[in-house]
Amino acid sequence: MNFTEKLLTIQKTKDSFLCIGLDTDPRLLPTFVSTASDPVLTFNRLIIEATHDLVCAYKINLAFYEALGERGWIILRKTLSFIPDDVITIGDGKRGDIGNTAERYASALFGELGFDAVTLNPYMGFDSVEPFVRDPGRGAFILALTSNPGSKDFQRLKVGTKKLYERVVVNAKKWNRNGNIGLVVGATHSSELRRIRNIAPTLPLLIPGIGAQGGDLRSAVRYGCTKDGTGAIINVSRSIIYASALSDFADASRREALRYRDEIRSIHLKYFK
Amino acid sequence: MNFTEKLLTIQKTKDSFLCIGLDTDPRLLPTFVSTASDPVLTFNRLIIEATHDLVCAYKINLAFYEALGERGWIILRKTLSFIPDDVITIGDGKRGDIGNTAERYASALFGELGFDAVTLNPYMGFDSVEPFVRDPGRGAFILALTSNPGSKDFQRLKVGTKKLYERVVVNAKKWNRNGNIGLVVGATHSSELRRIRNIAPTLPLLIPGIGAQGGDLRSAVRYGCTKDGTGAIINVSRSIIYASALSDFADASRREALRYRDEIRSIHLKYFK
Repeated sequence: MNFTEKLLTIQKTKDSFLCIGLDTDPRLLPTFVSTASDPVLTFNRLIIEATHDLVCAYKINLAFYEALGERGWIILRKTLSFIPDDVITIGDGKRGDIGNTAERYASALFGELGFDAVTLNPYMGFDSVEPFVRDPGRGAFILALTSNPGSKDFQRLKVGTKKLYERVVVNAKKWNRNGNIGLVVGATHSSELRRIRNIAPTLPLLIPGIGAQGGDLRSAVRYGCTKDGTGAIINVSRSIIYASALSDFADASRREALRYRDEIRSIHLKYFK
Repeated sequence: MNFTEKLLTIQKTKDSFLCIGLDTDPRLLPTFVSTASDPVLTFNRLIIEATHDLVCAYKINLAFYEALGERGWIILRKTLSFIPDDVITIGDGKRGDIGNTAERYASALFGELGFDAVTLNPYMGFDSVEPFVRDPGRGAFILALTSNPGSKDFQRLKVGTKKLYERVVVNAKKWNRNGNIGLVVGATHSSELRRIRNIAPTLPLLIPGIGAQGGDLRSAVRYGCTKDGTGAIINVSRSIIYASALSDFADASRREALRYRDEIRSIHLKYFK
């Protein structure tokens, strides 16, 4: 089973398109856990225990762990061990480097840490992507149009008749020989999300930007999904994991995750049967 | 003193434009060190002891250390502690993420590890760069035209009258309010290196691709330097650190580093007085 098939199977079985971003920042933890011996790890464990049955994936942004030094690396590894097999793990590092170096990153993320998938930056082209997609069982989400203000600086520039991000989408499709490539498309750009879905009718789309960043959930579901109503991975980070700053934070995150999962389900029912 | 001033002072004082890439791969170590208790760290220490007086900078590609897990992070930190103050340290991670996340990466690389400078991927635009250039004393080298085959996939696409990499150069100049931005330009593209130097007459250029990758040293010096003959950082990795696989590897790396430094000096004498 290649990565995309595995993802779609999990999405169908759990009837969930929700992905939670475990971007845990020690400065934002509830006081309740900040006195634990390892606050970040305790927080992650409690959030995972409270939400894993509701999600198809967890996305872990590596920056938050690298900022903690070697301890962060240990926390990352232990956090991954708490995540059950029926949830896809995405190492969100947006890596991109020349071939022999990209191979080392792939070895770090797939081998050392054991992520199911990663995010990649396309700027350096195919040889920076290839080492990550060699194993059909592991996935790579390539940045197309990101959710941040800076996405306008280069991604929207016109190259010939297309925009740069559209060229990235076209190439990603071409590179998808092993059935394990997806795209990152910010939920803050609804009409462009639709355009990207038209260009790449079957690639999985990892869609950040819902919640704190203000993206539109309805379009994320409607245009993020393929024709058969799967393949959108809708990521919410801060508004789920920091749903409460009190000792009920894990319950609060579950309530918030449930709310998102069910809202996604009801939008999904409208557009896909 | 801002980052660029610090770099140029070191280059003038030591009369060296050479940067050594400490991309240490445990699989490629001489047998002599592979029996040490910490082979990668021992290797790095011996290479640094043998070469630090000959270089203006060390570039450390993070992928090689991340592939070793938390131990790699400890090795990275200890390796940095061996590098004297008159050498710039560049954390080559090609990071790029949305603002609040980029801040965490900056905290990891500048705060946790204490690098003097980093490399960044421009695809996500200004808010992904800004947290790295807030402190004028720390530098950021932005990928413009990279040395690998994939550089043709997107970097050379025409956007209006310019190529994408030229747009990156123009923006990097505009973003350089704190005097701490430079560019990464592969030595494998001589004529384009010249064009980039024309567009950005004063930005420091970090130039990889010499040695194993086959870049042209003459053009790297001639076009990499600014008019007053500074600002080119010429990186050589594999052909210096793996100069010998025997027990004389440190001496061999010194000989090779000396050869590069002096060849750069003699080319420099020809074009700059």
